[in-house]
Amino acid sequence: MVLLKDLEKFAEKNLDNALEDLFKLTRIPTVTAKGGEYSSEAITELNRIFRDLDFETLTTETKGEPVFTSTSKTDKPKTLLFYDHYDVQPAEPFDQWTSPPFEPEIREGMIYGRGVADNKGNIIARVYAIKMIQELHGELPVNVKFIIEGEEEVSSPNLKEYVDSHHDFLFSDQTSCIWEFGGTNTLGMQEIWGGVKGICYVQLKTTGPNRDLHSAYGSIVENPANHLVAALASLRNDQTDKIQIENFYNPIITPSKEVLEAILKIKDTMDEEKQKEQLGIKKFIGDLHGEELLKKYYLNPTCTICGIWSGWQGEGGKTVLPAEAHAKLDFRLVPNQTPEDVIQMLRDHFKKNNFNVEIEWFDGYRPAFTPLSVPFVGLLKETMLEVYGHTPIIHPWSPASGPLYLFADHIPVLSIGVAHVGSRGHAPNENIKVEDFKQGQVCLARLMEKMAET
Amino acid sequence: MVLLKDLEKFAEKNLDNALEDLFKLTRIPTVTAKGGEYSSEAITELNRIFRDLDFETLTTETKGEPVFTSTSKTDKPKTLLFYDHYDVQPAEPFDQWTSPPFEPEIREGMIYGRGVADNKGNIIARVYAIKMIQELHGELPVNVKFIIEGEEEVSSPNLKEYVDSHHDFLFSDQTSCIWEFGGTNTLGMQEIWGGVKGICYVQLKTTGPNRDLHSAYGSIVENPANHLVAALASLRNDQTDKIQIENFYNPIITPSKEVLEAILKIKDTMDEEKQKEQLGIKKFIGDLHGEELLKKYYLNPTCTICGIWSGWQGEGGKTVLPAEAHAKLDFRLVPNQTPEDVIQMLRDHFKKNNFNVEIEWFDGYRPAFTPLSVPFVGLLKETMLEVYGHTPIIHPWSPASGPLYLFADHIPVLSIGVAHVGSRGHAPNENIKVEDFKQGQVCLARLMEKMAET
Repeated sequence: MVLLKDLEKFAEKNLDNALEDLFKLTRIPTVTAKGGEYSSEAITELNRIFRDLDFETLTTETKGEPVFTSTSKTDKPKTLLFYDHYDVQPAEPFDQWTSPPFEPEIREGMIYGRGVADNKGNIIARVYAIKMIQELHGELPVNVKFIIEGEEEVSSPNLKEYVDSHHDFLFSDQTSCIWEFGGTNTLGMQEIWGGVKGICYVQLKTTGPNRDLHSAYGSIVENPANHLVAALASLRNDQTDKIQIENFYNPIITPSKEVLEAILKIKDTMDEEKQKEQLGIKKFIGDLHGEELLKKYYLNPTCTICGIWSGWQGEGGKTVLPAEAHAKLDFRLVPNQTPEDVIQMLRDHFKKNNFNVEIEWFDGYRPAFTPLSVPFVGLLKETMLEVYGHTPIIHPWSPASGPLYLFADHIPVLSIGVAHVGSRGHAPNENIKVEDFKQGQVCLARLMEKMAET
Repeated sequence: MVLLKDLEKFAEKNLDNALEDLFKLTRIPTVTAKGGEYSSEAITELNRIFRDLDFETLTTETKGEPVFTSTSKTDKPKTLLFYDHYDVQPAEPFDQWTSPPFEPEIREGMIYGRGVADNKGNIIARVYAIKMIQELHGELPVNVKFIIEGEEEVSSPNLKEYVDSHHDFLFSDQTSCIWEFGGTNTLGMQEIWGGVKGICYVQLKTTGPNRDLHSAYGSIVENPANHLVAALASLRNDQTDKIQIENFYNPIITPSKEVLEAILKIKDTMDEEKQKEQLGIKKFIGDLHGEELLKKYYLNPTCTICGIWSGWQGEGGKTVLPAEAHAKLDFRLVPNQTPEDVIQMLRDHFKKNNFNVEIEWFDGYRPAFTPLSVPFVGLLKETMLEVYGHTPIIHPWSPASGPLYLFADHIPVLSIGVAHVGSRGHAPNENIKVEDFKQGQVCLARLMEKMAET
């Protein structure tokens, strides 16, 4: 291993090049949600970047945007796999950006631009970590692979098909994976994410008369808005926050000792009062605090109305009995729940309780996590302690969701990155700190060194 | 009394004049909902029309649009009061009109134009009934008064204040009132409306975090959409359609024998299958039929969600925990319920059940009805039997609402008019039949004659 300060020097020396590559990639407005017209330009740029590392590159077409993969030409016993994405969230509203979203710039030590945090900054930091190791060691001590998809921000509709047909490439015996997101918390402490909650997202619809009626009919014509509200209310006890769908909690596994210990450690870094103030709320659900609050946050599934609409929403008192009503609902799932099971339970619940509710469409991911007892967790923790001078916070999984199960079913997957708590991913003025961008490279370089040693 | 056929001849002879007056009034686009810029033009026209009858006229300013009143110069023991309004509903969508809404025209025996049914056709039919009696008898056998307001289509916000300060003018000892709406049913039978249900319209709001949050927070941050849905669901049992607000049903009085008899007679004119087909529903609430269905329609109060909105309503699966949620709700009230009581019960219900729901605003009318045993009902029934050749259907009250209580608290009020079941009030191609317009005049003329005799 080289000295840490030599890694840091290298990152400093190469900063301008790394920033130039990040800027070039950020200037390509790869907003897949608006159509993938910039995907090929991004892939041309990725080809240039990875060929410059002397990596092999491959573009695989899918039913949507292409998947870009790249592989080092090494033949080592261990492999480090990076999952990233070249697409970004839409940048609207443009007028809330201080500098234009696709013209990245640096102000006071921060890099601003759509995608710098999520997740083009990570792609380039990972590339420069490899460059660093190649130049200081002559060659990589582990094989490195990248899979960079173009549909993460639109729920990765074609990733499963890609992964299913590329198992051998992705999941060789001694592969570990670094996922696409991560950074520091409110105290500036590094965070490792051990996985994600699952999600089951459904759109529901109820129908009534063939047109909006005068509400004078209310006593004899069933109102689809009243009916939908009753059906939704039946799913969850509002006072206890218990989900009342039969068997909903049954598959859930008891959390491991390591998960509970990790949650306890997170507790010490939490400022509940500050968080409530930031969220504009007086109390958390059930007025929970400390360990109980965090346990609920990480270990409980949810049933959230993300949207609901029916009838008259304008000014004044239009007296209408609406023809239909709609709701969007998401369930965040914890280990052992699956979206398929939840949909079936939901259908059963509606049927059993005489709710005539149509499931218009649904979508979802299983929850996925890497057991905190696996060696890769310890290795990453050690590496971060050395590079950043403090033990990182380990989240057993994120309360958010993603297609991580496609990988975590086969290999250890942990997520770290170069963002920070104020990075504003998905929002105007998305940013990362130049310092985090450099240190992220050092951390990954050291991780590759340490992987080879164990 | 003159012969019925002489009345009919007179209506035929004067038809062109009556139509001309109706067309003149209809051409004035008195859409108060869009601002009252045409009120003064309408009042100028009303002044011309009523001075032509040798009536006294008076325009009274209010906080909104002026109230127009007019009085015959007679001094008879009995008085007939007409309540009408010169404002109309907005005419949008314009492209669904066959002829422009404010350029009335006759096609195949029907008069088309915004307001011809609701309720300018009634104003002119009432005027020409008076003209008929004046010319055939020399003078009116009863005093006649009109009150014509300009804010009926926007919930009559200033009518109460007007009525409260004009009791002497409106409610002298032997006054009876004809209200503004009415016509024929699906079988072409004349209908008399004995009153209206009341209404309590409320807009509700729940609030959560200070912005839309990522729904990953769902397990610890209370969701105002879930909370509003639970609060709304608690108001009504969806399976039994019982409203679950404490004491809600307690003030309701038992319907009179006459009311129950009237409902039984309506039953004989109902075609349930046809009505369900027209409404696009498979069954009425509780799969009720016949008498039970009609009893529920007339005698039950309602709790109808007229609108609800929160969070994401666009395409796809945005995972958001909304900052706030809203609903519009109307209660149709039956005799002895009041909007003020309902609002208090609603506040108590939310408080008692730990629902943190804000009542943003509310509005309403008390229910009002004229007992079917009063002589004015019999007189009108007899008159209509004579003029139309069949006994009219008597509705104890309309399941819709209006400011009728302001009058029915003091004098008998019944509603009849010249519309028909396909008149499309409030909709494009609003129309009345020329034949109904003429016969309506005859009916009212005969009513005045008969009033004087009893």
